[in-house]
Amino acid sequence: MNDPRPTAALHTRDAFTAPVASDLAGLLDALRASAAQRDRDGGHAAQEKQWIADAGLLTLAVPREFGGAGARWPDIYETIRRIARVDSALAHLLGFTCLQVVSVNVWGNPAQRARYLRGTVEQRWWWGNAVNPLDTRLVASATSDGGYLLDGQKGFCSGTRGSQMMTVSAHDPVTGKPVFAVVPTAREGITVHEDWDPIGQRQTDSGSVSFARVVVEPHEVLQRADTAYASLRTLISQQVLTNLFVGIAQGALEEARAYVTQHGRPWISSGVDKATDDPYLIQRFGEMRLQAVSAEALATRAAYALDDAWQQGTSLTAETRAHVALATSEAKIVAHRAALDVSEKLFDACGARATHGPLALDRFWRNARVHTLHDPLDYRIRDVGRYALSGTLPEVSLYT
Amino acid sequence: MNDPRPTAALHTRDAFTAPVASDLAGLLDALRASAAQRDRDGGHAAQEKQWIADAGLLTLAVPREFGGAGARWPDIYETIRRIARVDSALAHLLGFTCLQVVSVNVWGNPAQRARYLRGTVEQRWWWGNAVNPLDTRLVASATSDGGYLLDGQKGFCSGTRGSQMMTVSAHDPVTGKPVFAVVPTAREGITVHEDWDPIGQRQTDSGSVSFARVVVEPHEVLQRADTAYASLRTLISQQVLTNLFVGIAQGALEEARAYVTQHGRPWISSGVDKATDDPYLIQRFGEMRLQAVSAEALATRAAYALDDAWQQGTSLTAETRAHVALATSEAKIVAHRAALDVSEKLFDACGARATHGPLALDRFWRNARVHTLHDPLDYRIRDVGRYALSGTLPEVSLYT
Amino acid sequence: MNDPRPTAALHTRDAFTAPVASDLAGLLDALRASAAQRDRDGGHAAQEKQWIADAGLLTLAVPREFGGAGARWPDIYETIRRIARVDSALAHLLGFTCLQVVSVNVWGNPAQRARYLRGTVEQRWWWGNAVNPLDTRLVASATSDGGYLLDGQKGFCSGTRGSQMMTVSAHDPVTGKPVFAVVPTAREGITVHEDWDPIGQRQTDSGSVSFARVVVEPHEVLQRADTAYASLRTLISQQVLTNLFVGIAQGALEEARAYVTQHGRPWISSGVDKATDDPYLIQRFGEMRLQAVSAEALATRAAYALDDAWQQGTSLTAETRAHVALATSEAKIVAHRAALDVSEKLFDACGARATHGPLALDRFWRNARVHTLHDPLDYRIRDVGRYALSGTLPEVSLYT
Amino acid sequence: MNDPRPTAALHTRDAFTAPVASDLAGLLDALRASAAQRDRDGGHAAQEKQWIADAGLLTLAVPREFGGAGARWPDIYETIRRIARVDSALAHLLGFTCLQVVSVNVWGNPAQRARYLRGTVEQRWWWGNAVNPLDTRLVASATSDGGYLLDGQKGFCSGTRGSQMMTVSAHDPVTGKPVFAVVPTAREGITVHEDWDPIGQRQTDSGSVSFARVVVEPHEVLQRADTAYASLRTLISQQVLTNLFVGIAQGALEEARAYVTQHGRPWISSGVDKATDDPYLIQRFGEMRLQAVSAEALATRAAYALDDAWQQGTSLTAETRAHVALATSEAKIVAHRAALDVSEKLFDACGARATHGPLALDRFWRNARVHTLHDPLDYRIRDVGRYALSGTLPEVSLYT
Repeated sequence: MNDPRPTAALHTRDAFTAPVASDLAGLLDALRASAAQRDRDGGHAAQEKQWIADAGLLTLAVPREFGGAGARWPDIYETIRRIARVDSALAHLLGFTCLQVVSVNVWGNPAQRARYLRGTVEQRWWWGNAVNPLDTRLVASATSDGGYLLDGQKGFCSGTRGSQMMTVSAHDPVTGKPVFAVVPTAREGITVHEDWDPIGQRQTDSGSVSFARVVVEPHEVLQRADTAYASLRTLISQQVLTNLFVGIAQGALEEARAYVTQHGRPWISSGVDKATDDPYLIQRFGEMRLQAVSAEALATRAAYALDDAWQQGTSLTAETRAHVALATSEAKIVAHRAALDVSEKLFDACGARATHGPLALDRFWRNARVHTLHDPLDYRIRDVGRYALSGTLPEVSLYT
Repeated sequence: MNDPRPTAALHTRDAFTAPVASDLAGLLDALRASAAQRDRDGGHAAQEKQWIADAGLLTLAVPREFGGAGARWPDIYETIRRIARVDSALAHLLGFTCLQVVSVNVWGNPAQRARYLRGTVEQRWWWGNAVNPLDTRLVASATSDGGYLLDGQKGFCSGTRGSQMMTVSAHDPVTGKPVFAVVPTAREGITVHEDWDPIGQRQTDSGSVSFARVVVEPHEVLQRADTAYASLRTLISQQVLTNLFVGIAQGALEEARAYVTQHGRPWISSGVDKATDDPYLIQRFGEMRLQAVSAEALATRAAYALDDAWQQGTSLTAETRAHVALATSEAKIVAHRAALDVSEKLFDACGARATHGPLALDRFWRNARVHTLHDPLDYRIRDVGRYALSGTLPEVSLYT
Repeated sequence: MNDPRPTAALHTRDAFTAPVASDLAGLLDALRASAAQRDRDGGHAAQEKQWIADAGLLTLAVPREFGGAGARWPDIYETIRRIARVDSALAHLLGFTCLQVVSVNVWGNPAQRARYLRGTVEQRWWWGNAVNPLDTRLVASATSDGGYLLDGQKGFCSGTRGSQMMTVSAHDPVTGKPVFAVVPTAREGITVHEDWDPIGQRQTDSGSVSFARVVVEPHEVLQRADTAYASLRTLISQQVLTNLFVGIAQGALEEARAYVTQHGRPWISSGVDKATDDPYLIQRFGEMRLQAVSAEALATRAAYALDDAWQQGTSLTAETRAHVALATSEAKIVAHRAALDVSEKLFDACGARATHGPLALDRFWRNARVHTLHDPLDYRIRDVGRYALSGTLPEVSLYT
Repeated sequence: MNDPRPTAALHTRDAFTAPVASDLAGLLDALRASAAQRDRDGGHAAQEKQWIADAGLLTLAVPREFGGAGARWPDIYETIRRIARVDSALAHLLGFTCLQVVSVNVWGNPAQRARYLRGTVEQRWWWGNAVNPLDTRLVASATSDGGYLLDGQKGFCSGTRGSQMMTVSAHDPVTGKPVFAVVPTAREGITVHEDWDPIGQRQTDSGSVSFARVVVEPHEVLQRADTAYASLRTLISQQVLTNLFVGIAQGALEEARAYVTQHGRPWISSGVDKATDDPYLIQRFGEMRLQAVSAEALATRAAYALDDAWQQGTSLTAETRAHVALATSEAKIVAHRAALDVSEKLFDACGARATHGPLALDRFWRNARVHTLHDPLDYRIRDVGRYALSGTLPEVSLYT
């Protein structure tokens, strides 16, 4: 393959300790119990978000020097995946809190890092964001003190409703450049709208946010670094999505298994006594697992590649970063397909009665469907194809 | 292929006249306008059912001798398909009214045929049913006059809510045999429950029905004939489903086309000015159309085979009937897959904004998903495989 | 679908008589008996071509007014398909003889039509060609009498070896236009090279041909008409390929069936006594048949559309012709995939012993693989996609 | 997934050193140069096998205590994969020599291990085998000294032609049990037939072997241990196949890349100047790479799981062994499909000229096709499905 980064390297490290992932069982049970109903209701999951905060998960990506868990990326993603199996909306919220923590970590100066990262640990902040790069309606006007005033709107502000802190990206028409900052969500002039009504991922608090003369203090302005290391942020974000997809696939498989085990009946002409002996049903579970397993293996491979790169810090080269981007795209494509396919096949496995509305078993497909549309699959495949055909590595972009 | 019925025969007939299919445009526009909202609301579409009745479509399958349209099967299915493109739940209701009309036609004695078929024309009856063969909770007790009393329940009683007439199947524990009958839905003792709350096909009025000492008059009892001709009824039912799937695939493609044409934006790195010039988007539409076209071609092939067999009446042989069953299964499998795939790909074509809840564009997938679970795909493939491998034709069963 | 040509129209015609297709059984048995060996040997199938000529098949496309069979397109393609099931190379040769007959029919003047079409009947000519449009090495120099001298080479000259007549296309550097003509293959200066050594379709006699001052008489020059009707020639050619693919898929399925029936053993852990009872094997045959049946249905649909258009003669409109082109591409894509998939799955059905070299069961895949590369599948899908997305019909081109 | 072996464990080890894989480039170039011609010729690759022996690769699986390379399984498979990219037949021979070495290692007593493993290092033995478990024609008759006489035949004796040593399995009709032994291939009474003529994997020397009163000395009889550790041998064999498939997929992709880069021309209606800019070609390479990468990731995951288990030696539990079996099946299924698909798509990427016989680019598909039929894919999927549905781990069998 002429791949300058041998796969073997991904497997040659000391053991990680993953304490955060060890005592989630109770939390996961609780989330699962209400997931169907909350999918139907939509809206904000205040109670459940509190549980996640109480479990200490908000500090997963906060370095240990600031009191955080300082977890390694494979462990963070494993945690996100496990939550996504039972509730991919809340898993998204956790993943995006980790992502904003990373933003502060890579773009913040020492004082900002100390303030916001330590604050995340001490105050159990949920982080929201208003940084959707394709939405250019939010305008920043520089003030004389080095701060800004924000006016306008942003859509798809995942996690902002119910958050304590948020990152913001706005367009400065004078310089023509974007401005990045951290502001408390409660800051005067910020209105978080309750207008998130999608077909899936219904509790990601991803509505729009309005800004009316919102003050950004000078010390809240982040300086977006242009290093390969800082640009890992985009890949961290893409791997959050990837692992949501993996979790959805695994969760759909687990729901199918549980449903068939409890409610499955052999088909009238199957010639078997138990549904679990049906050769075609067994085959479907085999295919579902193969997709879930493939997606997980590539997600793990990408997480290790990311972690290697992350450990290199600012000495990371653009080329190594680009290989992580490639592995990330490969994992995301395979996981995208696994999430959609497994959540569709869930019904072939479970049969007609599983379409009963209150079970909301279609939420896996709807969640997958909403989340797999962030950016078009086809252009991600193009990146992989360009590398395979011409050796061209993906460039840094909004999504890669 | 050693196929004793050459395909060519399916194409060698005089032209059909399809008057019923010619002036549907207004009705279809009206149905489409409210389809998304009605999907979200669920429940009963009284107004829309009235429109369909007013358009004269309830008599499609009623022979001309009783004043009906006496349409040929390819035309009936084309009509069902066209409605399914905009609303597969209402198309299902129409298809199932046709199916009950057929039940009376093949199992009724001359007086029954005259009464119920002419009644359908004169009274514009919608027909419901309580004949789900896998639900054995409804019991028939013979009365001394040759009639029955019905007690118990049936689930999945498509079309019963809001119907004027219904067919019923009940278990007679004395004879061990099923009893078939026609009763007015308003008959004393019948309660139609408003408990249909599925993830898709939400307005098919398919809730459960309770029977409490419901009188069946002797003249209402149908004698289920055991001829190859009468058993076409099952294939007629399966082709209704098949054409719902085809219509869903076509409708999803049409919605995707309309959406992209109106709202599509070229992806940021696509290098094209218009979404409709995007090479990958064009490809996706190509693949969607190929699936829809394949499904339609096989559905048409099956409809002609059915129509040939139907014209043969009671002289129809079991072998010819079995070939129609095979063609029906082939069409249903391909249409099943087309409906699911095209309705999923709709979103890849339209992008993230198409997941906005009120658009309810996921209804195509949800409708397809609910309806494709009547019987397991795998056992239908088994029937096709047995023929391909061993030349064994499908036997008459509840689903084939 | 906004499809201005309702599918129903394809099914509404008087019965065809297909006498040619009725007594092929003996020929097919004979071809099948030696197909594996001839695939291994490659080269020229003189004996077998004689049998085909003796069966009268070379006049399939010759109008009755010239003594030919005057068969309708669905019947011609059915014949080609049946031969392709046992030997797709010889089916190709027959299809391409039909195609050259069509070339003369649409481009020839009355005298040329009489001479060449009647000659085909009376002399049992096999036709070759040297018209590969992507190969521009053959040069025509006008002579003073209205004829030409040909110098140069052409590759991929299917059918030329062993033919009596051939069509030629050459580049005239003076006018910049192509010159079309008919010449006897034995004409002085023509050398047919025995250099055809591909991985499949090994007996299509498609080697290269050299021309050294080859005289083209004025009365041999065809005037290429620019009508929609004449441009059906390209679609006739594409449908030849399509039906070769369908035949390969059907033939591979038939071989698999015969092999398993004769030699199949149940897998050690299958729990069944006979291979033909294996649930997974049955499923594979089901899937293979579904692909073959889908391909055949679309090929039949396209053949009827072509035949309709062909009957319209020179009054055919460009738009109607474009719809035939669309249906042709749809059929060709589905058949392309069916041929490759079924011929690959043949081995999953038959098992390891079926890979024994002398059986040459891989010839189905190799034949399919060679023949499906005439023009890229992707650009044909693009044509279908453009129509589905924007309503743009395919333009007349070398391949559509 | 309820998977008791977290994937993370597979990635948490000290770095391997893989010296054997570092200097293969020259050997690989040499093998690749003649691979097409040798595929066409079939037969025995004496010269090339010598090169492999000279490169020291025959001792890969021989423990260091006997002077071997003592390589870890991920490294052994990486080596096999690299050879399989250019020649999957020779890679198979190397893999099966490793496998016989393992047989001696797990079943041999200390003297046998010393003799045969040290002999492999010192004499550079290629190992053959006559152990095909589905072929029961070879009979062992016990002799009074504790040895046996062998009479009969075995088919599919990979590697035996040209080998110095071989393992043998024969049926003892007295005890009803199989007898395993090591014999020199040159032993009197053994005839290695040159009857291997398959459609692919043409140089694996897998013909049949006849035994006529062949003496097995008592010290040559292996005692087949019934431990979980010894039964890893089957999984080692299955992973050899898995990695051949991965190598074929990677090799086909590499050939396609090389061909398109050198010979690719943009399609006439593509609108691009270079083939490497064609959006659909790029997409195809993307899909091919995704398949190759998925297969490799699962193969690596399985190799690490195997290596973990192997390190546990005779303390290995049946349950842990079963999890390795599961991971092995998952990898093999995905690799099976990747090998077939990528080697078929190679031609879509390269176009019609790539079907020229002497290029033998179809060898990738033919090699994959022959090798993927050892045991039916469907039953391997069944094993995975049983685990996914019921938690049932695969049992030890001839293939799992």
